[in-house]
Amino acid sequence: MNEFVLPLRVYLEDTDAQGVVYNASYFRFLERARTEWLRAKGVEHNRLRDEHGIVLVLAGIEVKFRRPASLDDELYVSAELSGVTGARFVFRQEVRRDTADGPLLCEGTAEVACMDAMQRKPRRVPKALFKELNVWM
Amino acid sequence: MNEFVLPLRVYLEDTDAQGVVYNASYFRFLERARTEWLRAKGVEHNRLRDEHGIVLVLAGIEVKFRRPASLDDELYVSAELSGVTGARFVFRQEVRRDTADGPLLCEGTAEVACMDAMQRKPRRVPKALFKELNVWM
Amino acid sequence: MNEFVLPLRVYLEDTDAQGVVYNASYFRFLERARTEWLRAKGVEHNRLRDEHGIVLVLAGIEVKFRRPASLDDELYVSAELSGVTGARFVFRQEVRRDTADGPLLCEGTAEVACMDAMQRKPRRVPKALFKELNVWM
Amino acid sequence: MNEFVLPLRVYLEDTDAQGVVYNASYFRFLERARTEWLRAKGVEHNRLRDEHGIVLVLAGIEVKFRRPASLDDELYVSAELSGVTGARFVFRQEVRRDTADGPLLCEGTAEVACMDAMQRKPRRVPKALFKELNVWM
Repeated sequence: MNEFVLPLRVYLEDTDAQGVVYNASYFRFLERARTEWLRAKGVEHNRLRDEHGIVLVLAGIEVKFRRPASLDDELYVSAELSGVTGARFVFRQEVRRDTADGPLLCEGTAEVACMDAMQRKPRRVPKALFKELNVWM
Repeated sequence: MNEFVLPLRVYLEDTDAQGVVYNASYFRFLERARTEWLRAKGVEHNRLRDEHGIVLVLAGIEVKFRRPASLDDELYVSAELSGVTGARFVFRQEVRRDTADGPLLCEGTAEVACMDAMQRKPRRVPKALFKELNVWM
Repeated sequence: MNEFVLPLRVYLEDTDAQGVVYNASYFRFLERARTEWLRAKGVEHNRLRDEHGIVLVLAGIEVKFRRPASLDDELYVSAELSGVTGARFVFRQEVRRDTADGPLLCEGTAEVACMDAMQRKPRRVPKALFKELNVWM
Repeated sequence: MNEFVLPLRVYLEDTDAQGVVYNASYFRFLERARTEWLRAKGVEHNRLRDEHGIVLVLAGIEVKFRRPASLDDELYVSAELSGVTGARFVFRQEVRRDTADGPLLCEGTAEVACMDAMQRKPRRVPKALFKELNVWM
């Protein structure tokens, strides 16, 4: 099962003077959900670096904003692994309101690259990590 | 001339524990450049709302991250109007380092929608605004 | 009972290039805890504005940073009402790690002012709100 | 001369749904001004770490909010060194609007500690750094 849904609350910090959630806040929400997808599989940032010698970095992202979110809203942010290449993970992501099946606010695709933690160069995803993540190429 | 380049400095607030500029920070930078593109034409958020009855909101964005930026870097963020439809502006944007022609860190396309300030519904861009912006459909 | 403790996770967005949680992030955490203190009593921002005609704004804050927090840490952020005057709430707040009684990372005092939602001027806290909050002057 | 004033613009990212600048944004502004105070003396974060083996971290801060700031405002953020002990710098800081002598929006005191970059323990400010900063104990 390669989907994860993270519930979160909209705070003042996430909103802007137009009275809705500020656009860059969604990119923070989307990253939280990808991080929790990893954590749900027992993998944290520190372990990636210390045991696998890698960091995961966002290589590209494409997002459509469908409806605004407001202060105090409860959002459900999903991360679903939709593809893996040698050095990249591709996630389909959505932000919905009220419930995990509620109104769609935002949807997109994030491409996450595996980088060598020392040299900061692209690197193939370690096989051991694929196993841990229960993901098959 | 429909391009604007905004120089800005990378502060601690923009970075993350991976030692580089955090991905969501770029979306803040890109918006600053679009806002300055407008301001350079004499248009501020308040005037859009008070005189034209509209707000501009991000409808979609697609970004590729090419190279990381670091603390204290000087970045040059461009916004170039590449298309206009009845209710949307499309901007090509880049983030470069050191100079306006320096190494490319990030590039993308932002689609900005014109919304009625009261009803929060999509609305055609007012003709008077097109004139002010010196933009032709 | 006038204390509330909010558990939260440290994400990349909260950290900086010094490898720890960025100082301004704590002010976001402290506000989330104050907001949840209110919500636990059934009061949300919208209701404050719509039913009581007020907004609550931070008038002053004083914080000491004791120990750094790191990526992926689980933090416990408390908000305890320690005083009320006619127009202000005073909160004692702490951030601890791992458990609600874990190592103290940060502590401080926040003064929150009651403002008229329309006129943006200081205003006495409505009596009805005191009752709802179960707070006595 | 130990004062520095940084002009900056308020963007959407700095505001919140109450229509004004969000409280945590001020702490980002104050840090930008302290960083530019250092840079004006030729000292950047990287040099602190690489040449002096230290990092500067916020140890405490106390801020009073006097008046709100709004979207598109031009702010002037000052940092003035008001005291130095063996391991700490104390800055008086203000945020004003429109000009460096404009209406006072926020004022406070920030205590910045010198830490060993490796061991993350408090450390006396290196004598060589005092000289560079043109600061005398």
